[in-house]
Amino acid sequence: MAPSWEESVASSINTIYLLFSAYLVFVMQLGFAMLCAGSVRAKNALNIMLTNVVDAVVGSLSYYLFGFAFAFGTGSEPNPFIGTQFFALKDVPDGKYDYSFFLYQWSFAIAVAGITSGSIAERTQFSAYLIFSFFLSGFVYPVVAHWVWSSHGWLSAGSATLFLGSGAIDFAGSGVVHLVGGIAGLWGSIIEGPRVGRFDAFGKPVPIKGHNATLVVLGTFLLWFGWFGFNPGSFGEILVPYPTTTDQGNWTAIGRTAVTTTLAGSMSGLVTLFGRRLLIGHWDAMDVCNGVLGGFVAITSGCSVVEPWAAIICGFVAAWVLIGLNMLALKLHFDDPLEAAQLHGGCGAWGLIFTGLFAKEEFIIQAYDSGKGDASRSHGLLLGGGWGLFGSQVLELIVIVGWVSVTMGPLFYVLHKLKLLRISIDDEVAGLDISSHGGYAYHNQDEDERPRRYKDYLQMHN
Amino acid sequence: MAPSWEESVASSINTIYLLFSAYLVFVMQLGFAMLCAGSVRAKNALNIMLTNVVDAVVGSLSYYLFGFAFAFGTGSEPNPFIGTQFFALKDVPDGKYDYSFFLYQWSFAIAVAGITSGSIAERTQFSAYLIFSFFLSGFVYPVVAHWVWSSHGWLSAGSATLFLGSGAIDFAGSGVVHLVGGIAGLWGSIIEGPRVGRFDAFGKPVPIKGHNATLVVLGTFLLWFGWFGFNPGSFGEILVPYPTTTDQGNWTAIGRTAVTTTLAGSMSGLVTLFGRRLLIGHWDAMDVCNGVLGGFVAITSGCSVVEPWAAIICGFVAAWVLIGLNMLALKLHFDDPLEAAQLHGGCGAWGLIFTGLFAKEEFIIQAYDSGKGDASRSHGLLLGGGWGLFGSQVLELIVIVGWVSVTMGPLFYVLHKLKLLRISIDDEVAGLDISSHGGYAYHNQDEDERPRRYKDYLQMHN
Amino acid sequence: MAPSWEESVASSINTIYLLFSAYLVFVMQLGFAMLCAGSVRAKNALNIMLTNVVDAVVGSLSYYLFGFAFAFGTGSEPNPFIGTQFFALKDVPDGKYDYSFFLYQWSFAIAVAGITSGSIAERTQFSAYLIFSFFLSGFVYPVVAHWVWSSHGWLSAGSATLFLGSGAIDFAGSGVVHLVGGIAGLWGSIIEGPRVGRFDAFGKPVPIKGHNATLVVLGTFLLWFGWFGFNPGSFGEILVPYPTTTDQGNWTAIGRTAVTTTLAGSMSGLVTLFGRRLLIGHWDAMDVCNGVLGGFVAITSGCSVVEPWAAIICGFVAAWVLIGLNMLALKLHFDDPLEAAQLHGGCGAWGLIFTGLFAKEEFIIQAYDSGKGDASRSHGLLLGGGWGLFGSQVLELIVIVGWVSVTMGPLFYVLHKLKLLRISIDDEVAGLDISSHGGYAYHNQDEDERPRRYKDYLQMHN
Repeated sequence: MAPSWEESVASSINTIYLLFSAYLVFVMQLGFAMLCAGSVRAKNALNIMLTNVVDAVVGSLSYYLFGFAFAFGTGSEPNPFIGTQFFALKDVPDGKYDYSFFLYQWSFAIAVAGITSGSIAERTQFSAYLIFSFFLSGFVYPVVAHWVWSSHGWLSAGSATLFLGSGAIDFAGSGVVHLVGGIAGLWGSIIEGPRVGRFDAFGKPVPIKGHNATLVVLGTFLLWFGWFGFNPGSFGEILVPYPTTTDQGNWTAIGRTAVTTTLAGSMSGLVTLFGRRLLIGHWDAMDVCNGVLGGFVAITSGCSVVEPWAAIICGFVAAWVLIGLNMLALKLHFDDPLEAAQLHGGCGAWGLIFTGLFAKEEFIIQAYDSGKGDASRSHGLLLGGGWGLFGSQVLELIVIVGWVSVTMGPLFYVLHKLKLLRISIDDEVAGLDISSHGGYAYHNQDEDERPRRYKDYLQMHN
Repeated sequence: MAPSWEESVASSINTIYLLFSAYLVFVMQLGFAMLCAGSVRAKNALNIMLTNVVDAVVGSLSYYLFGFAFAFGTGSEPNPFIGTQFFALKDVPDGKYDYSFFLYQWSFAIAVAGITSGSIAERTQFSAYLIFSFFLSGFVYPVVAHWVWSSHGWLSAGSATLFLGSGAIDFAGSGVVHLVGGIAGLWGSIIEGPRVGRFDAFGKPVPIKGHNATLVVLGTFLLWFGWFGFNPGSFGEILVPYPTTTDQGNWTAIGRTAVTTTLAGSMSGLVTLFGRRLLIGHWDAMDVCNGVLGGFVAITSGCSVVEPWAAIICGFVAAWVLIGLNMLALKLHFDDPLEAAQLHGGCGAWGLIFTGLFAKEEFIIQAYDSGKGDASRSHGLLLGGGWGLFGSQVLELIVIVGWVSVTMGPLFYVLHKLKLLRISIDDEVAGLDISSHGGYAYHNQDEDERPRRYKDYLQMHN
Repeated sequence: MAPSWEESVASSINTIYLLFSAYLVFVMQLGFAMLCAGSVRAKNALNIMLTNVVDAVVGSLSYYLFGFAFAFGTGSEPNPFIGTQFFALKDVPDGKYDYSFFLYQWSFAIAVAGITSGSIAERTQFSAYLIFSFFLSGFVYPVVAHWVWSSHGWLSAGSATLFLGSGAIDFAGSGVVHLVGGIAGLWGSIIEGPRVGRFDAFGKPVPIKGHNATLVVLGTFLLWFGWFGFNPGSFGEILVPYPTTTDQGNWTAIGRTAVTTTLAGSMSGLVTLFGRRLLIGHWDAMDVCNGVLGGFVAITSGCSVVEPWAAIICGFVAAWVLIGLNMLALKLHFDDPLEAAQLHGGCGAWGLIFTGLFAKEEFIIQAYDSGKGDASRSHGLLLGGGWGLFGSQVLELIVIVGWVSVTMGPLFYVLHKLKLLRISIDDEVAGLDISSHGGYAYHNQDEDERPRRYKDYLQMHN
């Protein structure tokens, strides 16, 4: 009656793999917190860090209660648009879904709101943040995850019902995670408008530098570390041999995924370094950090299904997408303190397209059909794979932009109209930390106070 | 003669699991260092970080020489009160105890003194710290670990000799680790008295804010990350099938433990956020961080043996325990710069009680009897499990408070009487860093010095 | 035709082990970045962090294109001096080398330049950094790695062709990584000369303190964390049973390696704490951090082949090597802002010698011959193992110093002569960040600007 030896070994190996990947993805929450904190002014550091903590704690409860159910709850009558099972982890563990899978997906869900928090930083009411974070990670995101990642999602890679003859491939979520977070941020930032002082009276941009570059670098490296859980971890299982090979299996593809991820991020960082050097005349460390992240965002969709050389192309283009969109944002007087809409939205969109261009059939079959040789798949347009996959990628891009726009757009707009979204100008000038959080992030102890305290102390103790 | 294939696979899987869990727990040492540094004034940052480094390096040597032996050295004649084997890792590896287990336990041992360092921060002589840290992690803590965690400990979960008919369940150490560290901190802090200026001449508390909230958030997230090693890692082995199931084993329970841990911390953080908002009128990021940690401390005892919904209750109560004890501390003029006694002591105690109330029999049998169906266990009082387990939990609480009080209390008292414990008022006002460590943690380079240096340089090189 | 069950299990287990170890080693890059940033003045923080990011992104591309090929590309006609296969990962995966192995080795390659960046900090042109980093991690380091770590390297542990009758044992690279980085730094630092103001007109050293001790502690702990991937991870495979035992295998030796690593670093830190206390009169946290790292560097060569007690001796000596070399450096007016040449070079050299003295035959056979009982090995001189191994260790030390000197020395010298190496004195006094990177790492927002901006804002929006 007990699980067999083989089953026990497989379950143990796959659980270790999935759980430790989840732990790495969780580190990205810390990475976001540090990146965001360093990128804003000191007077708003407490606020933005609190939003990142809140994403995690609110996200835990909402994802437990219904987010996971919306995303992966496919019971006896699966619905292609939204899940309907596993509310509050009822019926978990069952044969397929278990706690480790929940934890892994939870670590993704809390990341989405973290992306958006960057776009609306330094000017958003904290209570508005609570509402939007709850709605985004508990409903808007899980629905998209269901479409693309659930085995019964209408847009999933396994879906053959699409008129295009192919589902979309968004392995670790350039679209599902990053584009969702980026588009939400785009609407939030547009509706709130730029920060006070970001553009002068003549519309010329005035740089507002983050207060601490060390935190930005810390956050970037932590995000890189976490991405090793995000992308290779998305295989879910490592113990899957490929029947048409003599020695390969998911373990091979997982290693390759870690390599493509690394190469795309590195190439994007390198291009940004030299590209920005040419454009602005100095070696800018902050740009390079964002460049690296842009490469990661872009490769996230196709990481498991492209060759390493293609990952380098992915990173190369991602860098220019980010540079271009940042220039455009300045022109349009769009102010996103973290460049989150440009980075996660823009590079995320490029990632979906990239997969449609460069996905290799053999690798798709590995990642989605356990390497079974009798499978055949629409694959990258530039590799001769036809328009099916490419069309699905474009479709995913469009429906995500549409879905997030019709859900988050109105939410932000209503909050705006009710005057619940943006803080007052006085509070913004003073800073969110002192106006909403009772103090500042940093304290140089008042030296003048010492004598008084010392006297008090002597008085009290003698 | 060689290990069999099955044995080799099992040993490899379990070693990976245990070692990487140990690495995560080690990260908690960094988490403590950052949390503590951010929570004290800049003038004492070097000091408190050094204590955390010292906990690790002193702890390595003392735990190697005798701490591990006291805790887990059960030779041919096991002693229920203290271990007597494996001094300096003699006879390791043997059939059961090996290096990975040592490393895992070492990562716990060094954490204990880190807890206490928070309570006595900003006013303790460094040499006193060395003495107390050595004594606590080398003797006081290992003895408690032996009682509760060693297979032959008189209070261990496997113990049937107790008059209560049940051993105590303290899976990852709400009591063994956190309560021990918290009670030690309680005595240290009481005997040292409050920091200069913490209460004014009329006894009114004067807030002393930490110097860097970013470090507090960094530390909190790192502790969260490390807790994934602390709690789920405490299973020790992952490759353990449950005979009464078709597909479950320790891999299932380990995933569930990661989930209960996450939910308890998140709930506690959330309750703290809103609770403190009601009480003090703003959204306080620092409170939320401590709230999250309080939830983790509380769930640490029962993490493996309760349902996710129970973990939410655990976190809910933990938040109020911490809020309440902090209010009480102010009333009593008790000054613990990190709230360590309240947080690790108070929530640790609640964790022991909680397990006595909500532990599920099926899960206890999974965690302690490898899921064997013929076992029966006293379990949670509120689940109809009788008074046996509940009584043992209360007993553990009492004996830990007693043992730590009779060992650490006198130690602190003697150091106090010998004037070795607290620094002078002058040094405290000036700060520990300049008075004991030769400088400050932060340097804004003296701009006035530049011309002189530059001239020197030209003189020297031309 | 598919991989067998046994093979699939083994590949999955070993891949998890190697990949997660690679992720840990990658964290060392972040550790270096934080350690370096904290150890320099604020005006150069951006610069040194950018060098660490650049090491990673440049290293990814160069290691992918040819570094990995130089190091491990042994095709049908293996060359003992340099590899010739796997350029741009061509022919990967094959039977032996796969993506995970590449990623693991990549994480080592990017670390080397990070070491050297410390030695030449605060005064090096960024474009010179790009050139030297590319050359060091793409060519100089991979060649040494080929000699010592490739199965066909002339100096490798498996090599019997050496006249000494034994190859060198440098398990995780005290020599291959740390000595290489340290000697490169030595030449760079000598050729550049000391920082402006490091020695006064009379040649007396003027302390230049790092700007942020918190970052130093953060970096140190992250490096410690990463070292658990660096040393135990170097086994590559965990599922290797030892035929002459009943229950041991690489899993045992891996645990022991984690323990020896911990003990050596801890002992070195402890000795430094008390040693510096005696020498300079206070408890210096920064010294302890470097002491811990010195112990890690030294044990890195022999970590898998020595007893825990020997690791303690290793750490004891490492501390004094570092203290002694630091004193010598002051005498010789050698200025290495991170003590990288002393720490990685000096302790790395000691590590090679130490292994020649204390390596245990049984453990060498475990680590290098899969524990096969019929093997016999020259081992530690002090354990009666003869001069063979000891001679090889000295030989490795000599050839590394020689090779790095004849490659990096001329490179630095040519850059120096072309005036491409060191920045101008004016730029150095002003700081690299403002002169080369367009700003500073830290921004206290100009409060005076607020009224103007506020007015602009009102003007624009009303």
